[in-house]
Amino acid sequence: MSDLTTFPPQRVGRHPERASSERDALDAVLDASLVGTLSTVVDGRPWVVPMLYARVGDRILVHGSTGAGALRAVAAGSPVALCVALIDGLVVAHTTFESSANYRSAVVSGRLEPLTGAEQEAALDHLSERILPGRTDEVRPTTKKERSATLAMALPIVDGQWTVKVRDDWSSVPEEESDAWVGVVPIRTVFDPPQTAPFSPPDAPVPASVRALAERNVPSPVRP
Amino acid sequence: MSDLTTFPPQRVGRHPERASSERDALDAVLDASLVGTLSTVVDGRPWVVPMLYARVGDRILVHGSTGAGALRAVAAGSPVALCVALIDGLVVAHTTFESSANYRSAVVSGRLEPLTGAEQEAALDHLSERILPGRTDEVRPTTKKERSATLAMALPIVDGQWTVKVRDDWSSVPEEESDAWVGVVPIRTVFDPPQTAPFSPPDAPVPASVRALAERNVPSPVRP
Repeated sequence: MSDLTTFPPQRVGRHPERASSERDALDAVLDASLVGTLSTVVDGRPWVVPMLYARVGDRILVHGSTGAGALRAVAAGSPVALCVALIDGLVVAHTTFESSANYRSAVVSGRLEPLTGAEQEAALDHLSERILPGRTDEVRPTTKKERSATLAMALPIVDGQWTVKVRDDWSSVPEEESDAWVGVVPIRTVFDPPQTAPFSPPDAPVPASVRALAERNVPSPVRP
Repeated sequence: MSDLTTFPPQRVGRHPERASSERDALDAVLDASLVGTLSTVVDGRPWVVPMLYARVGDRILVHGSTGAGALRAVAAGSPVALCVALIDGLVVAHTTFESSANYRSAVVSGRLEPLTGAEQEAALDHLSERILPGRTDEVRPTTKKERSATLAMALPIVDGQWTVKVRDDWSSVPEEESDAWVGVVPIRTVFDPPQTAPFSPPDAPVPASVRALAERNVPSPVRP
């Protein structure tokens, strides 16, 4: 089980020679999850909050209420780190020591930049579309009042300020006699059938955006 | 979508009057996930690493290699925060502004305590059993050499040093005319059928521990 915990420290400039391909890997990991954890430092101590996010190009967008404390603690430009981690499978070895997990993880460090005006409006739509693609066309636009109640911020993805790690493999071939089964149990996230609220308009059909979620439920690929 | 981002800050002593029932909620959230993110402060900046963990009573156990940097950065007793976040559903409202996510999250703050001797050995078995229950009885015990290559630490769960938050509901009833569908799309994590490694002993059956994982795949409950 050691692989997940030996995730490399977030050194600046680690493996710069692999940066271009690793950047694709970073984007793939960021785009595979809806939620990350945003860490900062408050009074010398770690402070962390789970957060929905959307990557758009070289920026990670987050949002929150202007009235609540969560995002305001990091709004002043203090250093942050956003961490995304997905567990893709249990790696079952011939010993517990050699057992591990397949996973994808990413850490992006930097400082959040507040977004205003058209940038803020676009960011909120990006976030909505990221979480439920197609939904913004099915409902009315956000109002000025709603936008003024929302804090939107961007974390720039800057070279040397992020790491990505992917483990996708069997365990090592045993170097000792063992008759124990060895393999991987894939883990994935699925959408269950939508549930209609009791106060939903009686004639309102399940919208296309929601129906499309089921298409994302694809069984894990079989390992060669 | 504002609920997730308005997660309350980790104030000490928040809602002490609800502590006993909230403690059950905390344990339930911690026991529902295999992976959390461990944050600490390095050179005044946030530092975060995803990590497998196991809660046992009033302690959260983590482990790592003695040779790698991840856990060593926090081994010296520096303050840490472990965050666990599970997304249980998309809350689809009549507007994107009112849309949200159902989720369970927990943050436990404190300092990691190194474990040695029998405590370390028990912690490693707890971690193995938490990740794949029954596996420790199916394979040989860990050796002294393996244990000496492993760092095991405990984060005590101390009153006033943790928060738990659960959202499990529809969106608010619209206060405006709308013909938009309203509901929830449940999200859950499933185990796919096990895949046998090419070097697994040809006669080795899929063990009981692995077969039992499929029983954890239960459809999301229907909301009343």
